[in-house]
Amino acid sequence: MTYRPEKTPATGQRGPVEHERREQILQAADDHFRRYGYHRTTVADLAKAIGLSTAYIYKFFGSKQAIGEAICGQCLGDLTAALRAVAAEPKPAAERLRRMFQRLTDLGREMFFDERELHDMAVIACKEKWPAVHTYQVDLQAIVRDLVVQGREAGEFERKTPIEETSRAILQTMEPFSLPVYLEFRFDDLDERVQLVANLVLRSLAP
Amino acid sequence: MTYRPEKTPATGQRGPVEHERREQILQAADDHFRRYGYHRTTVADLAKAIGLSTAYIYKFFGSKQAIGEAICGQCLGDLTAALRAVAAEPKPAAERLRRMFQRLTDLGREMFFDERELHDMAVIACKEKWPAVHTYQVDLQAIVRDLVVQGREAGEFERKTPIEETSRAILQTMEPFSLPVYLEFRFDDLDERVQLVANLVLRSLAP
Repeated sequence: MTYRPEKTPATGQRGPVEHERREQILQAADDHFRRYGYHRTTVADLAKAIGLSTAYIYKFFGSKQAIGEAICGQCLGDLTAALRAVAAEPKPAAERLRRMFQRLTDLGREMFFDERELHDMAVIACKEKWPAVHTYQVDLQAIVRDLVVQGREAGEFERKTPIEETSRAILQTMEPFSLPVYLEFRFDDLDERVQLVANLVLRSLAP
Repeated sequence: MTYRPEKTPATGQRGPVEHERREQILQAADDHFRRYGYHRTTVADLAKAIGLSTAYIYKFFGSKQAIGEAICGQCLGDLTAALRAVAAEPKPAAERLRRMFQRLTDLGREMFFDERELHDMAVIACKEKWPAVHTYQVDLQAIVRDLVVQGREAGEFERKTPIEETSRAILQTMEPFSLPVYLEFRFDDLDERVQLVANLVLRSLAP
């Protein structure tokens, strides 16, 4: 996962210095997690890397996992925002849905891998169902649902199947392409596979 | 994975005693791999367990991996046979396809897990693309393709999409449910998920 610092401090921050420290910790953590792995990094390593005490880090984050969750939340938030942007493009719903499949796969590869090596934090976040992963799934479900509704209203998609069933089924066919352990397994021919599935889904939506 | 001994010696075996020894090694290996993990088991452990020398075991199998591959091949062969049987039932093609999705998921859970714990050999077999995994994928593809052809001939399925595209896309939506790392991730609500996807696939096949 690649952490990108926030451009402006969010409201409710304790002030510019605190905000800067927080960002510094997250940057160091992202760097360490990617280089040495989440498992092998300790809070002491991070403290040493940025010349702070571990006690000072614990003022901002209660545990290493809290740091991991902050990074994970920001990455998945970026992913959701990118997919929401695709779903809002001025194109037919079918085209937007197809592009969502592809974008999800592209961004998943980009975010969860470095040089094809899967980040261990991504695997842990999925396995332990970190809250950010749940939020991401709920958000993605809503994006797919809205897109299907728009396609139905435009007469592009069939309307017989209950909307919940349709949107959950689509999400289910999409999920493997956003699942780090799956992406790893099928790294080489993902693009072809994702297009096959997107086309099948679009056939299932035909009125 | 659960190894089940063959009922009758295959032709080309070196004789009843050799056949029995081979079965004994595979049984011991299956037991050890499941109990202690493939990674942690050595050929010496197996030799000790059945009172043979490691040299004697190497007369039958060139390496621990060769033993693993034999077990893996037998398990996946059973899986393929079970799916082929479902695909040959005297039922409409749509119904057979739906049952294939479910059977694949059920058998995957049964074969690759013990008490919900994923066998490490199943993960290694997938990641390292053991030959038996490739054979299994080719066989499964052929079963799906034949079933779609039959459904088309019976007028149940649409005929516009090229048969290769249709059958490969279906296989792709099916694959996660036969992939150990995916089954592990979604263990709790697999049955619901597999039915959602099977229904979506059937809608995509509507004439």
